[in-house]
Parts: sequence; C-alpha cells; structure tokens
Amino acid sequence: MADRPAPAAVVGVGLMGGSLALALRERAGREEVRGFDPDAGALRRAVEVGAITTPAPSLEAAVDGADVVFLAAPVGRLGALAREAVAASGADCVVTDVGSAKHAVVSALPADARERFVGGHPVCGAERTGVEHARADLFVGATYFLTPGPEVRPDVYERLHALIAALGAHPVAIDAGVHDDLMALVSHVPHVLASALINQAAGTAPSGREALRSAGPSFADLTRVGGANPPLWTDILVANREAVLRALEGFASRLAEVGEAISRDDRAWLTAFFEEAAEGRGRLMAPTPPAGVTPWRVVVGVPDRPGAISEIATALGHAHINIDDLSLLPGPPGSGGELRLVVAGEAAATDAVARIAAIGHRVRAEPLG
Amino acid sequence: MADRPAPAAVVGVGLMGGSLALALRERAGREEVRGFDPDAGALRRAVEVGAITTPAPSLEAAVDGADVVFLAAPVGRLGALAREAVAASGADCVVTDVGSAKHAVVSALPADARERFVGGHPVCGAERTGVEHARADLFVGATYFLTPGPEVRPDVYERLHALIAALGAHPVAIDAGVHDDLMALVSHVPHVLASALINQAAGTAPSGREALRSAGPSFADLTRVGGANPPLWTDILVANREAVLRALEGFASRLAEVGEAISRDDRAWLTAFFEEAAEGRGRLMAPTPPAGVTPWRVVVGVPDRPGAISEIATALGHAHINIDDLSLLPGPPGSGGELRLVVAGEAAATDAVARIAAIGHRVRAEPLG
Repeated sequence: MADRPAPAAVVGVGLMGGSLALALRERAGREEVRGFDPDAGALRRAVEVGAITTPAPSLEAAVDGADVVFLAAPVGRLGALAREAVAASGADCVVTDVGSAKHAVVSALPADARERFVGGHPVCGAERTGVEHARADLFVGATYFLTPGPEVRPDVYERLHALIAALGAHPVAIDAGVHDDLMALVSHVPHVLASALINQAAGTAPSGREALRSAGPSFADLTRVGGANPPLWTDILVANREAVLRALEGFASRLAEVGEAISRDDRAWLTAFFEEAAEGRGRLMAPTPPAGVTPWRVVVGVPDRPGAISEIATALGHAHINIDDLSLLPGPPGSGGELRLVVAGEAAATDAVARIAAIGHRVRAEPLG
Repeated sequence: MADRPAPAAVVGVGLMGGSLALALRERAGREEVRGFDPDAGALRRAVEVGAITTPAPSLEAAVDGADVVFLAAPVGRLGALAREAVAASGADCVVTDVGSAKHAVVSALPADARERFVGGHPVCGAERTGVEHARADLFVGATYFLTPGPEVRPDVYERLHALIAALGAHPVAIDAGVHDDLMALVSHVPHVLASALINQAAGTAPSGREALRSAGPSFADLTRVGGANPPLWTDILVANREAVLRALEGFASRLAEVGEAISRDDRAWLTAFFEEAAEGRGRLMAPTPPAGVTPWRVVVGVPDRPGAISEIATALGHAHINIDDLSLLPGPPGSGGELRLVVAGEAAATDAVARIAAIGHRVRAEPLG
C-alpha cells in the first residue's frame, strides 16, 4: 500500500451515508471517499456538500480498491448489497453496514463472504433525512454496535474497530441475535406501541381530539415517535421479523398478566409489577463509570483460528465492558498472536480478565501508565 | 347567606388537595377553607403552608356549613367519602372529587345523593407529592373534566363550573363513561405499557443495562413514566377496572394484527398502519382555535327537569366546544329557565347551536360586546 490511505466507499448517501462520508474525511483523515447511490440527484448533492469526493457510476466502481465499504441503504436491501460489495471488493477490504437489524444481513451472505463482513449499527440519527443534513459529528459519543460473526478475520475486525473509534463513536461488539432482540425491545416494538396508541386514541369517538391535549405528559411521551417515517419502519419490522415477533409476543403476555391481575383485583401483584419497573428503571439508568479513570491494558494470547477475536469482543460487549482500543500483534505463522485491549479502570480490567479466561484464553492485565 | 362566602372544604390535603385549597383562597377569593385529613401531620402542614385556614377533626366537621366540598383522597376511597360528604353537608352544597376514574365514584352513590355530586378530574399534576409542594396556580390553563350525571341539579353544576373557571382551569363536561375510556387509553394503559417495557428490557439478559443507554430516544420517551408511584397506579387501575380492561384488550388486538402483518410480510398493511398513526397524530395535535376571537353568547331555553343542563354541557364537551362561562337564569316556577353559555367565536357558537337544537332545545346565539 502507498503512503496515502486507500479510498473508503459509501453506498447510499442519505443522512447516514453522508454523515459517515463527512466523518471519514474530517475525523478519520480519509482523503478519498467514493460514493454510489442509485439516486443520481442524491449523489450529486453528496458531492456538493463535501461528503463524497468521488462519485461512482456503480457499486462495483465505488468499492474497487477501497479498504472499507459502508453500506447505508434501506435495511431491506442490505443483504443483497453486502453480497455484491464483498464480491466486488479486494481481498483485504472490510464491508460493513448501518442497518438496525443484523441477523438478516449476515444470513444473506455465503460463508466465505462472512470473513470480511462485520455488521454495524450506529445508535444515532436525526429528525431530518437527506444528505443536506449530514454532519461529521453525528457519531461522536454514540454507541456503535458491531456484530462480528465467528468467521470474521481478526485483522478485518481490528481495522474496523479502530475506524469506528476514529469517527468518535464507542464500538461495542455484540452477538447479532442479541442485538436484534435488544433493538426489537427498545426501539422496534416501542415504535409499534406508539403508533398503535395513536390509532386507538384517534379512533375513539367522540373524544379523540381531546386526547393529546388533555392527557398529560404520559400520552405525549409514549406517542412522540408514532407515525414517523412509515416506509422506513415497515422495512425495519420486516427485516427484524423474528426478533420483533418474539418481543411482541412477550409483551402481549405481560399485558395479559396485568389484565388478569386487574380482573381478580390483585393489588399486591399490580404493586409488585410497578415496583419491579421502578427498580428496573433505576438499574437501567445507572450511570456509566466516570471518565478519567486509569486506562488498563488487557493482553490476550489468541489462537490462530477465526472467531477468537469476535468471541472475546462480544463477551466484553455483553458484559458492558467498553473496549477503548483494540490491536492485534501477529505471532509467528501458525502460532496465533497477541490481542491488546484497552479498558477504563482496574475493575473493568479484572472483570475482562475473568471473562476472557472463562472462555479459555491466556490473559493478563496491567495499568497503562 | 351572609356577605361572606360560605366556607369551602377540602378532604385530603396532599399535593392536589393543598393546591385546591391555595387556589380557592388566592384565586377564588375564599376566606375560609376547611380541611380534614386522617393524617394529622399532613393536616398540620397544610395549615402551616397557608392552604387550610381551619383544620377540622373529621369529615363531618369540615363539610358542615360548606357550600363546596372537594374530595382529594386516594381514588379507591372516593366512593365512600362522596357518600359521607353528601350525607353530612347542607342541602345546597356541591360535592366533587378529583379522581382519575369517574364511573366507580358515582355508582357508589344512592340516586338522591347524585343531585349534588359532580365528578371532577383536573388534568394536571406534579412530579412531587405532598402539601409542601402545593401551588395555587396548579390548575391555570389545565383541562378540568366535570362529569355531571343526569340527576345533577342545574344550580349545583352552575356554581361548580364557575368555581373551576375561577381557579384558572377550563371546565369541560364529559360523560363519566367516556371520560374513563379516554383516560384508560391516554393515561392508564400508557403507564402499564411503560412499566411492562421496562420489565421486559430489564429482564433481557445479557444486555438489559445497555438498553436505555443505547436505545435512542424512543425507549426513553416510552418508559419515562414507568414505575412511578406503585400504590397510586395500582389504585387507579383497580378503580377504572372496566375501562382499563377494555383498552388493554383493544390494544392487544392491535398488536396481534401488527404481528400477523409482519408474519405474512404484508408491507402494505404495515405502511398503512404507520401512515394512519401519522395522520392521527397530526389530527390529535391540531392546534386549538387562537385566543382573542370574539366571544359569543349561546342562549338556551331549558326545561324544568334535572339532566337538561348536564346533557347540554356534555354534548358541547364531547364536541370539543369549550364553555368559557355558564350561567342559569331561572324562569317562573314550573316554566324552566334560560341557560347562557359563552363560547369563543362564531364557528363554535354555530356548532353549539346546531348540537343543542339537535337534542331538542330552543337555542340562539349572538356576539358579545
């Protein structure tokens, strides 16, 4: 590779793709960001706002020679695009996407394509859509889920992790299925609930119109996202079908339990239900550890097999241990290498060591001075 | 009656009762506000903060000689208290409550007691509880539902309507059953949904703690009221049992429909579902008519039978026509009288005339001023 970094490619240049392109240029020091979008007008505007340096006439042309490809298209298209992008890109190119359902994308890929594909999901967004509203700082401070499968090559994951951190986001590795269940619960089903509540209120004659005005804050809070972007949310529900159906079913069971408790006048059950929520809310909102604690380095001997690095990153992601930095030092051929992670503070390092040891790796930790 | 207005009475002096007492003194010019609370400490503090002028040793002592009684106790106690308050108060005394479920209270009353009882529900509240946080301006600009039944005496309703307006609130007459269905939908079920969502998220290992932090705004919005005040919300669900069960059932059906549409990959149905919500949300949030329009007087010939005035007020409440002022001019004995309403603007007046004529009354409208 020459002195200049390879081009990056962004496929789909709406708000998210445009913001990625801007952040790649302004925060990650990329000089060339190629873009492709089937909407020629969107692509032209992406160049005009300075997001894309090099418009490309096709996905193939955009990814040719790139070392990283971001797919920022509607979620229903991501599986097909990932297949095309892996096939058209070079042997060291990382392909990632920004969809809010991850299992469906990776299952669309043949096994060998999964070596270079890492699912991604930046948890951020904006009220407005379109590349005109793209911002280089959209990802700063945001959780950015990565869902490396067992086939992902360690060097591929390492480069993507570093690039996401350079954009200002916090990369968090998570199993694709766990991600999809979590998003179903905290985002997809809540959107369904909000719209269902509005539809029920609007259909309640004669007082529908009085509803929002007279309801106080709970109704306004619960329905704020109702009716937002119908085609987008239709795509998301379909793309995350299995997890959304599981979450809806679990939710319906809970509502049925509440109804039964009301029917039998079971105040103790109802009070316990609300108390569990009060306790759960307190726990869910517990503050993260303060910034400024000493960074610790966790050093792991990794065997020379695919899956080890994604297994370790995912174990820490599930345990809510943020990996602030991740680097891989290869050993002699056939002997594995050394994975170096940086985490915040001794407690996180001790926890990380225990969890990595538990899945069978040699591991030690030391403060970074 | 002497020059001084009769005492008002407030039973239950928490945040709501204390605020009513303060508003009665500061906004409605009441010199004497008697208070009773089974919690002697709360009653003492209500006197200390200047809400209650005259602490009473019992409900009977508080209401004796009062011309209006506000019951601001836990919703499960309101039926029994309403019965006691009507029995212990004078023949012209209005008894009202501030509970968020209305049908259960009035059904606890014998038919003759219903002549002087009007259910009430100020749609306002505060994060904090206790008379220490009571405020005279709590009701300013708030919708204040009144649920006059057919047995309510017109003079009783007229006085209560004027008093609620004097507190700064907008009195809106509504059928008790319609009120309960509406509140189930826009407040009680949303509280259940918020707590159910938290309980489901908190129980989702291993990523529960990540949930709120990574979920973006929809989850935070939807769960903001989750787990608030477990005993209060238990009481409300039980007090509004029938309407809450109906709303929960209707809601569960909608969720099941969404699940079926996802299962059969029915994008058109899902898009229509979200579009209906977008349209409904726009309609529910449509702005109220601007202030400053010409007030119109609507004059109705009312027959000398109970129920006429509550029927008219409720018809306008259901049609979202605010009654800014309401007064009753009695005619000769046995001949009925004249009900004068003030509404904002010609359009509202025309609508009011049509609706009042439709239920069989002589009615005309004229601009004021």
